[in-house]
Amino acid sequence: MTKGRLEAFSDGVLAVIITIMVLELKVPEESNWESLKPLIPKFLAYIFSFIYIGIYWNNHHHLFQTVKKVNGNILWANLHLLFWLSLTPAATEWIGETHFAKNPVSVYGIVLIMCAVAYTILENLIIKNEGEDSTLKAAIHSKFKEYISIVFYILGFATSFFYPYIAIGLYYVVALIWLIPDKRIEKSLKEN
Amino acid sequence: MTKGRLEAFSDGVLAVIITIMVLELKVPEESNWESLKPLIPKFLAYIFSFIYIGIYWNNHHHLFQTVKKVNGNILWANLHLLFWLSLTPAATEWIGETHFAKNPVSVYGIVLIMCAVAYTILENLIIKNEGEDSTLKAAIHSKFKEYISIVFYILGFATSFFYPYIAIGLYYVVALIWLIPDKRIEKSLKEN
Amino acid sequence: MTKGRLEAFSDGVLAVIITIMVLELKVPEESNWESLKPLIPKFLAYIFSFIYIGIYWNNHHHLFQTVKKVNGNILWANLHLLFWLSLTPAATEWIGETHFAKNPVSVYGIVLIMCAVAYTILENLIIKNEGEDSTLKAAIHSKFKEYISIVFYILGFATSFFYPYIAIGLYYVVALIWLIPDKRIEKSLKEN
Amino acid sequence: MTKGRLEAFSDGVLAVIITIMVLELKVPEESNWESLKPLIPKFLAYIFSFIYIGIYWNNHHHLFQTVKKVNGNILWANLHLLFWLSLTPAATEWIGETHFAKNPVSVYGIVLIMCAVAYTILENLIIKNEGEDSTLKAAIHSKFKEYISIVFYILGFATSFFYPYIAIGLYYVVALIWLIPDKRIEKSLKEN
Repeated sequence: MTKGRLEAFSDGVLAVIITIMVLELKVPEESNWESLKPLIPKFLAYIFSFIYIGIYWNNHHHLFQTVKKVNGNILWANLHLLFWLSLTPAATEWIGETHFAKNPVSVYGIVLIMCAVAYTILENLIIKNEGEDSTLKAAIHSKFKEYISIVFYILGFATSFFYPYIAIGLYYVVALIWLIPDKRIEKSLKEN
Repeated sequence: MTKGRLEAFSDGVLAVIITIMVLELKVPEESNWESLKPLIPKFLAYIFSFIYIGIYWNNHHHLFQTVKKVNGNILWANLHLLFWLSLTPAATEWIGETHFAKNPVSVYGIVLIMCAVAYTILENLIIKNEGEDSTLKAAIHSKFKEYISIVFYILGFATSFFYPYIAIGLYYVVALIWLIPDKRIEKSLKEN
Repeated sequence: MTKGRLEAFSDGVLAVIITIMVLELKVPEESNWESLKPLIPKFLAYIFSFIYIGIYWNNHHHLFQTVKKVNGNILWANLHLLFWLSLTPAATEWIGETHFAKNPVSVYGIVLIMCAVAYTILENLIIKNEGEDSTLKAAIHSKFKEYISIVFYILGFATSFFYPYIAIGLYYVVALIWLIPDKRIEKSLKEN
Repeated sequence: MTKGRLEAFSDGVLAVIITIMVLELKVPEESNWESLKPLIPKFLAYIFSFIYIGIYWNNHHHLFQTVKKVNGNILWANLHLLFWLSLTPAATEWIGETHFAKNPVSVYGIVLIMCAVAYTILENLIIKNEGEDSTLKAAIHSKFKEYISIVFYILGFATSFFYPYIAIGLYYVVALIWLIPDKRIEKSLKEN
């Protein structure tokens, strides 16, 4: 089976997710600057989530560059990833609405962790399906980025119960790690 | 006529359907755990419908792998399927809002049954259009899954007037039957 | 310039238009049948508009089957069509909200007429761009369907100020004319 | 890496942006003409933003016609452009809601300027990536349109603090400059 529709459907879902978040930015009825103040935490949360979804799209894009064939399991693993990503707008709204309060930041952390878990499952299924000569397997052999991300997520989640702003900072470190889409994959694609 | 745009349009509609359901998860203004409680039935309904739309996307994906040409009738049969699927978010919101009450679960059942009917019509029109050497016809010759699904849907619908939770369970059985996208089609595609 | 992205963008916009209309179907908080009553006119309006957008998608799909190249004017004529189609959800909501009152039905008629005008402009620009050997020109030489549609739309619009239900009926006649996507195009595609 | 998914994702995001703006056109519950009055400034703002997003889509479409390969930086520069474009619906709602008041028109100007900056960054990265024989570089060598646009945006922004309607007029001049998608690119594509 070809990967075309899996990519198209994922692009569609991610495009809707990244765009409907802007619906939360409910503009005030007044036109003075003061009235924009309550929007600031929502806007920060929006930027943060936009970057996160952008990172996932970028890495999803790179990931599937290496894929030659898909199967039923990969379709479901991909839907599983999209499910957790689809919760981002609601989690974003909650942290924006509550000005980065403890519980919302914890919930946001859980969503991010589950996205990372779902992404790893998808990666593993692709490697399994591609077999021994998988470009992806060669590309990510060390899995260093994956492990360090999980460490920071768990640290962030634990911290969120006490210092939610530091937790957001720790989540952000993971974002920075993945901001540059997998050079490993680009390199491996060139070699093969 | 090629099938490219039919697939692209269906992917777009399904991507929007699956994602706008998350808009129903209206987050509370408070940050305490208590305030999340009213979201629980809505979240369960969301998961349930996400899986359902996911199943339809997966099977639609498999179905059109076998298709070589489309015609005006198939375009309309596909729109008919999308129409019933587009009612899923509203039906989901109603069962979530009313904590899985009897009437909403019945309505949800009707939507699911109509989706199944529309899917079967689409399948038949494709087989008719492909002609005698249809890969799809060879793949689904027994139609066992189709018949057993309808039995469970009718059972679920009838039960919904008395025990809505059992009805949801019966609808779920159908989901499980279709969770694994048609191995029959994958097998038949390999043979041809 | 290739037509691929014009088709993809149009599919995306039409997919969003057809799906966000369902957001107007705001489900009641109660679970009794009575509470669904106010939804009936909205649901009828939804079905009507779903079919209309479906017809436009189908005919747009057929139209671009004949197109080999696009230019800047065609891109804008297509955006112009999408603009008027994008007003359908708002017009639909108004007729649903007001139980098919006179003014909303008139406005709905204007939107439908402008969609038809925009579609005709697009058709003409495509024929002009394709030149003398245009498949499309050969296909629609009589323009009978286009003329009869405009007659019924004007009749419907005029009637809407007195009998809105009859107006809706007249709009529906146009829908029926276009329900079967252009056989003329299918035939002409085969001949060429 | 191929450009296919970058185009598909951008088309998806732009399709959602252009369509969700119509959700702001909240129709009245009454059916008299009077009740439509408050919608007029919102409708004007909607038309204005629809044209703006349309212009960006058209130019994005032309821009990527010249692109043969993409890299990680281009993916991010494209997401950066989509980010600023995604703020258009909120900015549009604010100017519509406040009847083109000074502050909202200034904010709208900032969004438009940032879109233009993001577009220029994207253009430069593409030229850098394509190398010396870039079709795009040959096409836009003078950058006259880019410079004149920035002058008018800055004029518009400065004016918005005193005469918001004139500011909108100045923004509109930039729109008119770009309305016709880059003939320079069409010409350059033909030559190469």
